[in-house]
Amino acid sequence: MPEFDFRAPRLFVDAPLGAGQTVELDRNQSNYLGNVLRLAAGDTVLVFNGRDGEWRAEIGGRKRADTLAIIAQTRAQDHLPDITYLFAPLKHARLDYMVQKAVEMGCARLQPVLTRFTQVSRVNGERMRANVIEAAEQCGIISLAEMADPVPLGRLLASRDPARLLVFCDEAAEVTDPVQALRAATAANAGIDVLIGPEGGFAEEERALLTRQPNILRLALGPRILRADTAAVAALALVQAALGDWRKCQ
Amino acid sequence: MPEFDFRAPRLFVDAPLGAGQTVELDRNQSNYLGNVLRLAAGDTVLVFNGRDGEWRAEIGGRKRADTLAIIAQTRAQDHLPDITYLFAPLKHARLDYMVQKAVEMGCARLQPVLTRFTQVSRVNGERMRANVIEAAEQCGIISLAEMADPVPLGRLLASRDPARLLVFCDEAAEVTDPVQALRAATAANAGIDVLIGPEGGFAEEERALLTRQPNILRLALGPRILRADTAAVAALALVQAALGDWRKCQ
Repeated sequence: MPEFDFRAPRLFVDAPLGAGQTVELDRNQSNYLGNVLRLAAGDTVLVFNGRDGEWRAEIGGRKRADTLAIIAQTRAQDHLPDITYLFAPLKHARLDYMVQKAVEMGCARLQPVLTRFTQVSRVNGERMRANVIEAAEQCGIISLAEMADPVPLGRLLASRDPARLLVFCDEAAEVTDPVQALRAATAANAGIDVLIGPEGGFAEEERALLTRQPNILRLALGPRILRADTAAVAALALVQAALGDWRKCQ
Repeated sequence: MPEFDFRAPRLFVDAPLGAGQTVELDRNQSNYLGNVLRLAAGDTVLVFNGRDGEWRAEIGGRKRADTLAIIAQTRAQDHLPDITYLFAPLKHARLDYMVQKAVEMGCARLQPVLTRFTQVSRVNGERMRANVIEAAEQCGIISLAEMADPVPLGRLLASRDPARLLVFCDEAAEVTDPVQALRAATAANAGIDVLIGPEGGFAEEERALLTRQPNILRLALGPRILRADTAAVAALALVQAALGDWRKCQ
């Protein structure tokens, strides 16, 4: 069970957190606390910065929420499982959603990958970061996923750490038992890269390039077509349940 | 690998399908083919009705797409795995999305369930049906999921078939290995009901009622909070991979 109050409002602040500290709120944060969350001076909110854990803070201010007085730590800083999510970027709202899902599913790193049938070639880094933060705030996640700029598939494969397990989801794969296949993968201790291709699929030469990589696991996600965001959550669920932190060591 | 052309445009028609038949298109279908898919007389489209399999059809008409001439069967009628998705209904766009995801993940039946913290008490059945059809069209699914009217949790539990496995996702569950737990469940042959509660969680008396049911499997989906639509896809991915048609018998 998540051992924290998952219904309490949460705010990311980019400032050091410690008992007795004061954090100045910018206009967006003030608006979020006051108008969106309907909180006022004297109310508490949980804050995190991705480094110092999660703290209980009290809102201060006269007309509007101006400052946060940091009171006591509620959770120590934790770490996300070493899972990198590699994905063909989509447009706007669909990309927002994709990023949020990857954060909810516990990925430590988000890496857009450009392939032949990728819909867009650029992503708005600021917007991605805002989505990472929002998903973390809403789902009680206090470590922030790292983001990277888009990179072409060939360059990504040439520069990745071959000791990591590369799971790639491909409707053309012949896999009879995805969880068993994941559990049998021996390279997972060095970290896991999960690659979801574009909705147009991989081009033949891309598939050929991928299947030549060391430490790959080619996974089919059932007999039906899944849209990219569905495939992302499904693949990450299988990875987390087979190899990640959805399993607890007894 | 999905053994069908998953990129071809597809249309659901509520009419008998057989070689040599003609189907009249209504205004919406005509608009969809002509203006959305940009198809014209002479072009082909794949059609299905949920009963007679999938057929190749040729569009006929003068100014706009008027009729379909049914030519040849491309796939025999199949059946969805016996998985019922039980879910707390959400509002509008979030409900649309939830229904689409359940269809993509291969559920045979969608059953809204009313609980203490459910956001809405009614669903628009016509809108749900439209979403089932759209998701089926876009993902090459030729069986249509059944839909049921919302029912309160207590009545649902009192009237369900106790021989079926009831998987319910509960952040309060202590499950160390969700896939193993699913595989060990012996009641799955009679069909599987997957219950995702509302985002506010189950009330204590609801959790008590659920844990008293026969043939239940209480599942925790990791240490983080998942939003309802994420939990739906994640839970269904685990069920399909452990017990459903994401595993092929060798």
